[in-house]
Amino acid sequence: MTLVKVYVNYKKSILNPEAQAIHSALNRLGYSNISDVKLGKYFEITVDDDSKDIDSEINEICDKLLANVNMESYRYEIVEGANA
Amino acid sequence: MTLVKVYVNYKKSILNPEAQAIHSALNRLGYSNISDVKLGKYFEITVDDDSKDIDSEINEICDKLLANVNMESYRYEIVEGANA
Repeated sequence: MTLVKVYVNYKKSILNPEAQAIHSALNRLGYSNISDVKLGKYFEITVDDDSKDIDSEINEICDKLLANVNMESYRYEIVEGANA
Repeated sequence: MTLVKVYVNYKKSILNPEAQAIHSALNRLGYSNISDVKLGKYFEITVDDDSKDIDSEINEICDKLLANVNMESYRYEIVEGANA
């Protein structure tokens, strides 16, 4: 088993109203020292070991399904030998 | 500036249909070696340095706003001295 953690975020040039709403809600609740909030998605994908090239597989999956590459960017880290 | 990364995930006992849909879509697309998909939210919060107790502040924010503690669990990591 290999655990892959994938983080999908909006690109900087793309407006994210949900993150802005959270930011202003925090300021309204009195947390005035919060200067920025970013919001993204976080995937934990468990891959069986028979995959020969896990990097190209994960890139394919992200491009096809997990991220909208026009608006979002992604990064991932591979956690070898995870039992999760 | 301190950068705090917050990860919010559904608890294990809570059904997550979006993660299941992604899992079956991946299997249908031919990625049969994917054995599990988990999906959560990922926040990057920039805190100005005048916060005395950043741990208790982040816990409060998560409990009040970022996570539904009945269904979701969260964890966070503090990245000191970040310029992000």
